[in-house]
Amino acid sequence: MNYQAPLRDMRFVLHELFDVTGHCQQLDVELDRDTLDGILEEAARFTGGVIAPLNRNSDEQGCQLLGDAVTTPDGFRQAYQQYVDNGWASMTGPLAFGGQGLPQMASACFHEMLMSASLAFRIYSGLTESAVLAVHRHGSAALKEAYLNKMVSGEWTGTMCLTEPQAGTDLALLRTRAQPEADGSYRISGNKIFISGGEQDLTENIIHLVLARLPDAPPGVKGISLFLVPKILPEGQRNTLSCGALEHKMGIKGTSTCVMNFDDARGWLVGEANQGLACMFTMMNDARFQVGLQGLGIAEAAFQGGLAYARERLQSRSLTGAVVPEQAADPIIVHPDVRRMLLTQKALVEGCRMFATYTARQLDLEQAGGNDHPAAKRRAALLIPIVKAFFTDVGQEVASLGVQLYGGHGYIREWGMEQLMRDSRITQLYEGTNGIQALDLIRRKLLGDGGAELNALIDEFTEIVEAARGQTALHEMADTISQRLAEWRALGRSVIDACQRDPQEIGAVSVDFLAYSAYVLLGGFWLQAALRAQQALGQGSAEAAFYQAKLHTADFYWRRLLPRASAHRDAVIGGANCLMALPASDFSF
Amino acid sequence: MNYQAPLRDMRFVLHELFDVTGHCQQLDVELDRDTLDGILEEAARFTGGVIAPLNRNSDEQGCQLLGDAVTTPDGFRQAYQQYVDNGWASMTGPLAFGGQGLPQMASACFHEMLMSASLAFRIYSGLTESAVLAVHRHGSAALKEAYLNKMVSGEWTGTMCLTEPQAGTDLALLRTRAQPEADGSYRISGNKIFISGGEQDLTENIIHLVLARLPDAPPGVKGISLFLVPKILPEGQRNTLSCGALEHKMGIKGTSTCVMNFDDARGWLVGEANQGLACMFTMMNDARFQVGLQGLGIAEAAFQGGLAYARERLQSRSLTGAVVPEQAADPIIVHPDVRRMLLTQKALVEGCRMFATYTARQLDLEQAGGNDHPAAKRRAALLIPIVKAFFTDVGQEVASLGVQLYGGHGYIREWGMEQLMRDSRITQLYEGTNGIQALDLIRRKLLGDGGAELNALIDEFTEIVEAARGQTALHEMADTISQRLAEWRALGRSVIDACQRDPQEIGAVSVDFLAYSAYVLLGGFWLQAALRAQQALGQGSAEAAFYQAKLHTADFYWRRLLPRASAHRDAVIGGANCLMALPASDFSF
Repeated sequence: MNYQAPLRDMRFVLHELFDVTGHCQQLDVELDRDTLDGILEEAARFTGGVIAPLNRNSDEQGCQLLGDAVTTPDGFRQAYQQYVDNGWASMTGPLAFGGQGLPQMASACFHEMLMSASLAFRIYSGLTESAVLAVHRHGSAALKEAYLNKMVSGEWTGTMCLTEPQAGTDLALLRTRAQPEADGSYRISGNKIFISGGEQDLTENIIHLVLARLPDAPPGVKGISLFLVPKILPEGQRNTLSCGALEHKMGIKGTSTCVMNFDDARGWLVGEANQGLACMFTMMNDARFQVGLQGLGIAEAAFQGGLAYARERLQSRSLTGAVVPEQAADPIIVHPDVRRMLLTQKALVEGCRMFATYTARQLDLEQAGGNDHPAAKRRAALLIPIVKAFFTDVGQEVASLGVQLYGGHGYIREWGMEQLMRDSRITQLYEGTNGIQALDLIRRKLLGDGGAELNALIDEFTEIVEAARGQTALHEMADTISQRLAEWRALGRSVIDACQRDPQEIGAVSVDFLAYSAYVLLGGFWLQAALRAQQALGQGSAEAAFYQAKLHTADFYWRRLLPRASAHRDAVIGGANCLMALPASDFSF
Repeated sequence: MNYQAPLRDMRFVLHELFDVTGHCQQLDVELDRDTLDGILEEAARFTGGVIAPLNRNSDEQGCQLLGDAVTTPDGFRQAYQQYVDNGWASMTGPLAFGGQGLPQMASACFHEMLMSASLAFRIYSGLTESAVLAVHRHGSAALKEAYLNKMVSGEWTGTMCLTEPQAGTDLALLRTRAQPEADGSYRISGNKIFISGGEQDLTENIIHLVLARLPDAPPGVKGISLFLVPKILPEGQRNTLSCGALEHKMGIKGTSTCVMNFDDARGWLVGEANQGLACMFTMMNDARFQVGLQGLGIAEAAFQGGLAYARERLQSRSLTGAVVPEQAADPIIVHPDVRRMLLTQKALVEGCRMFATYTARQLDLEQAGGNDHPAAKRRAALLIPIVKAFFTDVGQEVASLGVQLYGGHGYIREWGMEQLMRDSRITQLYEGTNGIQALDLIRRKLLGDGGAELNALIDEFTEIVEAARGQTALHEMADTISQRLAEWRALGRSVIDACQRDPQEIGAVSVDFLAYSAYVLLGGFWLQAALRAQQALGQGSAEAAFYQAKLHTADFYWRRLLPRASAHRDAVIGGANCLMALPASDFSF
């Protein structure tokens, strides 16, 4: 599949909606508009020209385990080398360890491009960035000194070793053990599963971050510690850890998903003893944001694939008569139902891109400011579970629409659309299933502050509505969004009340409240986009077609997708009783 | 994956809701309750014990093409032989040609079981049944004599050769040619794609039904004729047709999906010249009904898989405190969000089973009565596109929920859940994409009679509502369904008006109007089930838990799934303008 980064839309979001250069100034990062646009153009060439062409084969070929060595698909090694050599790996890494220190708001578009080009390829470097964050924030000076430079550059990759067969969502059930040694190191023993990039042939060393229990650790999640366990020890010997098997998966076949066996492997504590979960949590926001971008990236790829086919596939005539009478049939983009699918893809993809960029800003402010930006921290905390769950649901829906647009051909592997569906399906599961994201939204975020941050967010969007009312053409949409914002506020209040009365309501309303919130938020972003488009048209922009397309897509969104919020609202109101009344034994007879 | 046919629910639907034995009497088919229940129990043993165990391997192994011969996965040959030997193949076949002549209403549950056990296996025999129908209704006495007995018994299989690379939805673009010979036969030449079972090693002969054009045929769909083209000619020689390639697909890998090349292959006309499309249409209802059952069957399998895992997987504690304190964690079925997923599966699966059985009755009456049952014919015509599209959408949703219930394990092939997602995805595409079903619903059915049959259907369900009002416990649900029925009637009216004003509205409203209709209909069926359950409980049934479960599931349905109708209603109202306004060139920049 061809992939061309949607540079015009990225510039719209970065510069016209969210002022990325002003944001960089605020963060004391030197990055002017031309430089950033230049980076993005180069990134578009790299992802479209080097990475995307590897994606189809990587699915067919997959990874191979021979002995305890893993080979990645053809071309991954060379592409990864280029990725490192050209500095793409270090884009967001800390300056002190050779990174370029770019804010997320500037890098998110590049990361989205990587996800579009090949999710399987991107996972290796994405996890390394997460590992860098953990070591940078919690590791000792000695550990940072020994590992960070090569991890930031991408010369070494990193992994996150959390899951065990009996411990997925519930890390309290973790069994991997760590035994302290006299020299301050530890001996780690246990079996981990679903370890992405646990073994590969891209780099000479792999730095595993492993959750394990110390001998005297309290039970449950308060007795989990984080360890850095390298494949190759500093002295050059191979550590006693290995990949025991590769999982056979639905998709992302170019990513090695490993069963990892640690057999008295040597490692070092990261952060405080028994604080492993807290160490993981500090980077959770970033990791979940990245998974959200995976959903967005795949959705963009599926939209491009669907659109290309809809323009070239000739089949049947328009309902109002032949549009291209000189050909045997009309291109299927003339059919309203095909347009419904394409516009659903477009409105969701571009909506999520605005949402992602807005969220990246909060993450940057939080990371830069620490406690100086408590508002950004709260805002990011509220938005991240929505980004992770909603964007990945969108990824799956938009990829499935891509398949549907191709008809029977969508089911055939060579076209690449069904691969996008298979690849994207993992994103709804890992880094906390989407159900877990929704529980987090209700329990930690909404109930955590009694709805204060939700209301602050609604206030902010209410200001956008007021500004939009100034444009006659946007009156109707602004009214609808305004009603939804008021409804959202009231629904949040009633959810809090219900959850305080009955804890089962937390899990009963969670997924639908998250989806409801996402659709209303996207409505807010689309109103903002429409407002900007109106302004640009009012100023006589030379790009009238681009801004008109924004207005049309906003119009489609609020008329045809925003109504989904009603179904989720009513399901929330449906409550817990209808879920809990049926005895577990009576689900089938 | 284990599969156990849901016999209790099938008996509920067949006997308690729709009186299958009375139906058989009406059709002059001798089939008493014990005999039918005995057949279903035997069918449950066969599908659960013989077919289901082959399904996982069939996905890994797939079909192989060596020369022009295709081998099916291990075990398919033996299982197919057993299928034929035990008379399963001939269940619905015409009596005159060795069939058992069972009505669809009695056979649908068996066919659902086959789909649950292995869609890939079922496709071979399902297409044979479609081919039997076509030959039986349209073939000459000589063709019937020569082919039907062995096709009905399953000794030979049949295929449907419609699609060509340039002609999928749009059969007007068909290029395959048929040249008349002096002896009354024809020479067929052309290339067909996506031919399920085009070549296989299950039977010694394969009977292809091929759409092609006669030399003097008018252009477009009025110039298409149907031909019977056997792999082995009556004289015993091999015909000049062959499988040129197997498609590499997302799923149903145990089904051979063939590129078929016809090179002056000898064939015979079925029905009148240039009436090929009409011949196909007479069996379209049956074929589309079968695809609907595929969605239902896969959904049932995914529900069973999800439920089994939710009962045994221990992870985290209930929100209200430990339910099984003696174990390390509670089974995940205690969590409200897990129950939301399971109940969504259950309510959709059992709802579609009622819907399927109701529709099968209409098909039987239509087939038995011909013009004596114009009401059944109209009713079936209205319902079939909904069954095909909605059930297969349900199949995909429920299979995806199955994956989600397993968390990360859902993504791993050995658990079988991701296979169900991949297998079910084809059902939304073939036998007319779901978008085409929706166009059929609006154009041929709704506009065809100005909404008369829709209103007749709504009247029928209104009677169920009135009956349900007699039960105090059902008041609230009955009121909701009653409002929805009135809303449906009004929406149907406004859709007809809109489509008459602007033909683009046909394609603009179609998919959402179909989904809206399906959710309201399912509400009607659930009200009917609840009414029956109330009556049984009132009569002091010994199976109180079963009937209570029906009431709880009905309660879940109308509180938490029926609200989806609102989103579809509003999208219908959203209309065509927001789809058509954006120029095709401006979908991306």
